[in-house]
Amino acid sequence: MNGFDYQQIDDVIHSRLRLAIMSALITAEQMEFITLRNLIKATDGNLSANLKKLEETGYISVKKEFINRKPVSSYSLTQQGKDAFAVYIENLERLIKK
Amino acid sequence: MNGFDYQQIDDVIHSRLRLAIMSALITAEQMEFITLRNLIKATDGNLSANLKKLEETGYISVKKEFINRKPVSSYSLTQQGKDAFAVYIENLERLIKK
Repeated sequence: MNGFDYQQIDDVIHSRLRLAIMSALITAEQMEFITLRNLIKATDGNLSANLKKLEETGYISVKKEFINRKPVSSYSLTQQGKDAFAVYIENLERLIKK
Repeated sequence: MNGFDYQQIDDVIHSRLRLAIMSALITAEQMEFITLRNLIKATDGNLSANLKKLEETGYISVKKEFINRKPVSSYSLTQQGKDAFAVYIENLERLIKK
């Protein structure tokens, strides 16, 4: 069995809530805040904080618009986010399959 | 796409270091502290703290003995730990594959 530095696992993605966000967005072109919240079953505050972290890291982008005069935020993965997710999955599988 | 409550992911196992420990022990009958440390590349303190957490949760057991008058601690998964790991992997795959 070879060594595996656990720090190879991307900590930004690995948090359970952020992993749930990334997993949801990888299959969807884009997703509104409320859809994401209902899907993942997170609180508004917790979801917001983790979306912000992903946005700051450059993994997701947000589009804000008004629909029927209500503000709607939609999220999608950036190319950097898609690449990081692929690397994350690869490392996770290497770690678990050992 | 169905919802997936991110809290279904076992937080005790999900921490990167503990996941690395569980993954290492799932393939080994038992493993000494030093072997585990070299494999995972954790510091002594960090590894100790996380082994303790896994032991307190009932996922691993520790055997302490003296070999050439030196204390040696060996760790292995309990049945509860093996079961919890199987459930964890199942939930993780469900989350990621969505």
